[in-house]
Amino acid sequence: MIYLNKEDILKSITLDEFMDAVEEAYKIYADKSFNMPDRIQVENDDLTTLYMPCFTKKAFGTKILTVAPNNAKINKPVIDGVMLVNDIETGEMVCMMDGKTLTAARTGAVGGVGVRYTTSEDVKTLGLIGTGVQGFYQVLYACKARNIKTVYLYNRTKEKAIKLQEELKKELENVDVIVVNSSLELLKNSEVIITATTSYQPVIDNQKELLKGKHIIAIGSYKPDMRELPDALFEVVDKVIVDTDFAKEESGDLYLPIKNNLIKSEDIENMGDFIRDNKEFDVNNKTTLYKSVGMGLFDMVVANKIYKKAIEKGIGQNINL
Amino acid sequence: MIYLNKEDILKSITLDEFMDAVEEAYKIYADKSFNMPDRIQVENDDLTTLYMPCFTKKAFGTKILTVAPNNAKINKPVIDGVMLVNDIETGEMVCMMDGKTLTAARTGAVGGVGVRYTTSEDVKTLGLIGTGVQGFYQVLYACKARNIKTVYLYNRTKEKAIKLQEELKKELENVDVIVVNSSLELLKNSEVIITATTSYQPVIDNQKELLKGKHIIAIGSYKPDMRELPDALFEVVDKVIVDTDFAKEESGDLYLPIKNNLIKSEDIENMGDFIRDNKEFDVNNKTTLYKSVGMGLFDMVVANKIYKKAIEKGIGQNINL
Repeated sequence: MIYLNKEDILKSITLDEFMDAVEEAYKIYADKSFNMPDRIQVENDDLTTLYMPCFTKKAFGTKILTVAPNNAKINKPVIDGVMLVNDIETGEMVCMMDGKTLTAARTGAVGGVGVRYTTSEDVKTLGLIGTGVQGFYQVLYACKARNIKTVYLYNRTKEKAIKLQEELKKELENVDVIVVNSSLELLKNSEVIITATTSYQPVIDNQKELLKGKHIIAIGSYKPDMRELPDALFEVVDKVIVDTDFAKEESGDLYLPIKNNLIKSEDIENMGDFIRDNKEFDVNNKTTLYKSVGMGLFDMVVANKIYKKAIEKGIGQNINL
Repeated sequence: MIYLNKEDILKSITLDEFMDAVEEAYKIYADKSFNMPDRIQVENDDLTTLYMPCFTKKAFGTKILTVAPNNAKINKPVIDGVMLVNDIETGEMVCMMDGKTLTAARTGAVGGVGVRYTTSEDVKTLGLIGTGVQGFYQVLYACKARNIKTVYLYNRTKEKAIKLQEELKKELENVDVIVVNSSLELLKNSEVIITATTSYQPVIDNQKELLKGKHIIAIGSYKPDMRELPDALFEVVDKVIVDTDFAKEESGDLYLPIKNNLIKSEDIENMGDFIRDNKEFDVNNKTTLYKSVGMGLFDMVVANKIYKKAIEKGIGQNINL
């Protein structure tokens, strides 16, 4: 068995291969050739543990995440965990990897696939609202998918935006990374806008005219009462694409607009079908929304690809079972 | 984080420490100071995966077992898996160990604690019915708990009994290990009898007079229709002790006798209360039954002790997270 830490994971596959693996997961989702039981949540005092098993025809794995809010006080990650990859035939564990890195990078890659399919090819400007760990990877993949020249960062706590600015400058040559003072400034300047917050109130300004022609990628809200998007978006949006069908119930960014008759559920398309069926869709001058809540299938397919590539390249720590 | 394979586990703690850890688990069970959610079972084609989380005040862990019946054809273990140990405060994973060895050894230790509390101190003879992996450890711990001079082995497939005989001879000096041709021969010769089969029919002969004064330790049956014990046992038994309250519903060896009015549920004692309350019970010349179905709490407490001792002794493979 091998163990892959953060560095190993990021060395094993390229950003493009990460996004290709997400596309593969989307095809498997569209074909329904997977088995993803409901995630299991176990609580003990302040600690929450999530078990997320998933099976495809090729592999089987479990992401196990722990959520320990008190860790913030001692400068340890609040969300931690591992991904286990097992042989689909024998059940043998073949690989374990850092669950934090897998989650953050694959969520970035899920966003990146959104950029691939729902933004104009010539977009040059990107705005990120919410500058946590997820934000870092969102920008990284977006800049890989498109030739972005300027990235605007906005965060309620400006220091965090400045910290991310420094990190991104190291990663992205030839890209200007600018911290702005308001979401309005960001909205005005960005063709693509990614929201990666845990907000319960819209984080984009409710301005119909400014929203027109924008490509929105929303990855933050994962509960019915969490939302990042303003109502005005649904007045101007031409195309709404989701990663999973259950996103319509799980995320307030779709659940609430559907409930309030701002959009019809049947008008929301599924990225899996879109990719599998090679659907044509001209995004130029269109307003688009891509909403992702994530699923264990992404972890499973991406982790299996990372594992295979790591073996090929001789990456990782060998564990003598 | 460290990984402990079979050799590491068996080097980390002694047989007596294994049994002491089981006693500690029994006290925690009696005090109800644990959190053990229902085990989670996930099926995919022929593969079954079990997730068994458990929390104590000191530690948190998850045993993950895969059951792959087809592995038998390719000479790989049908039941495989790992035990994960996490820090109870931060949730961080601190140790992973071989789940096969943990399960087999702790089940042996659970049997061994039964020998400690439910058999006469001067017993010299032990019979084992069912000579699989579990059987090996059952004999090992029983011989540690009492000064056994002769071990009798019986198995439907005699070759397996002969194989275990050879293995046990290597481990147990000064103990005669004898393969017998019938369960009746075993019953006649043994003061302590351990059953470790997956039978759906009694594996001990239904002979009241021969059962009198025997100490029976039954660890095989874990479903309501599985049974190893004959009805006649309940006519002569003086004391019945279980590892867990749910054993009365889970195991046919208790469920069926209770249903058929051979014994009353309230007459069955719990080993946890017994140990915690230092209960006196003179087992001499008494007929006893100790029935175990196992639980995640045993795994958790034993695994945490193995982990602590491994760290102390510098045993295990370091994994750089």
